Amino acid sequence: MEHLIIQYLSKYTTITNDLEQAITESASIKSFPKGKILLHEGDISNECYFILKGCVRSYYIRDGKEKTTEFFTEEQFILPNQYGTNIPSDHFLECIEEVVLNISNPNAEKEAFQKYPQLEILYRKMADIIFVNFQKKMDEFRMSSAEQRYIDLTKERPDLLQRVPQHQIASFLGISPESLSRIRKRLLKKK
Amino acid sequence: MEHLIIQYLSKYTTITNDLEQAITESASIKSFPKGKILLHEGDISNECYFILKGCVRSYYIRDGKEKTTEFFTEEQFILPNQYGTNIPSDHFLECIEEVVLNISNPNAEKEAFQKYPQLEILYRKMADIIFVNFQKKMDEFRMSSAEQRYIDLTKERPDLLQRVPQHQIASFLGISPESLSRIRKRLLKKK
Repeated sequence: MEHLIIQYLSKYTTITNDLEQAITESASIKSFPKGKILLHEGDISNECYFILKGCVRSYYIRDGKEKTTEFFTEEQFILPNQYGTNIPSDHFLECIEEVVLNISNPNAEKEAFQKYPQLEILYRKMADIIFVNFQKKMDEFRMSSAEQRYIDLTKERPDLLQRVPQHQIASFLGISPESLSRIRKRLLKKK
Repeated sequence: MEHLIIQYLSKYTTITNDLEQAITESASIKSFPKGKILLHEGDISNECYFILKGCVRSYYIRDGKEKTTEFFTEEQFILPNQYGTNIPSDHFLECIEEVVLNISNPNAEKEAFQKYPQLEILYRKMADIIFVNFQKKMDEFRMSSAEQRYIDLTKERPDLLQRVPQHQIASFLGISPESLSRIRKRLLKKK
């Protein structure tokens, strides 16, 4: 499935033969079943991921309850909060579908960057784009009511509503399942 | 004030003489008075910033009202949402104090990276750290009540409460000035 990584990266830069070789060589692709916990709170986190297939949920446990903060799907990177440090992870990562991932770690990255410096340049450019997209998302979340957040989600990530249980969607929107249910009823009436 | 940039970057890597020269050469430091708008909605955004002194506010206009989404202060980078693209900016940047900035642009970056490749490597490493910090902040915001967000702000950025008008703090927390006032009264009683 390396071709999926190359296909994705080619959106950001011209993939030369050298770069294609670098990507193929440094790829490490693995499958995980639904329900697999990739990272537990308290674990030392030394893997980062690129999703080729499936959906991974990030969540915290607060006051004994799961709080969902992100759903990562195809063509998204997962950089865990404590990745590459010796600080125990403050969150969990769970495969909520069967998942295929390209996995990396600090040593593999270092080796790949030393061997193929153009890979590091590509990653810097992508980091800027990913950061700005994240900043825009954060701004929208800050400015929006719960109803607006739900409407935005139905437009921007309609697949999530099919793939993810309602109570996790509610948690992700920062509201109770009952509030989400009321919002959905209100919007259905407006149609 | 180049030494402040070097002092900051030395937290992330060893600053060799070469790197120090690269940073000093590529620095472009300017001062702006309080009230100066660095970026208007609709502008083409071709500058990014590193704050040496002062506070810059990012805000949007929605339904005729200002919505504050960020306060950038000393040692923070500002990467505007549409930086380096031909897409008109969706937000404003305003100096809410007298501000001293190191300013860069896509051409200056490209030149500096070509001349000093180690600068690009440093930026990639920093981008990861900045991204993860931002992700943690976003997670906390998603999981927290308005009161908890205010408590976190008093702990993590106590200076902001002195530097910024209350109605902008309220907007930043995603609540009305009246709600912020109620939260503050409630917390004072608890003390």
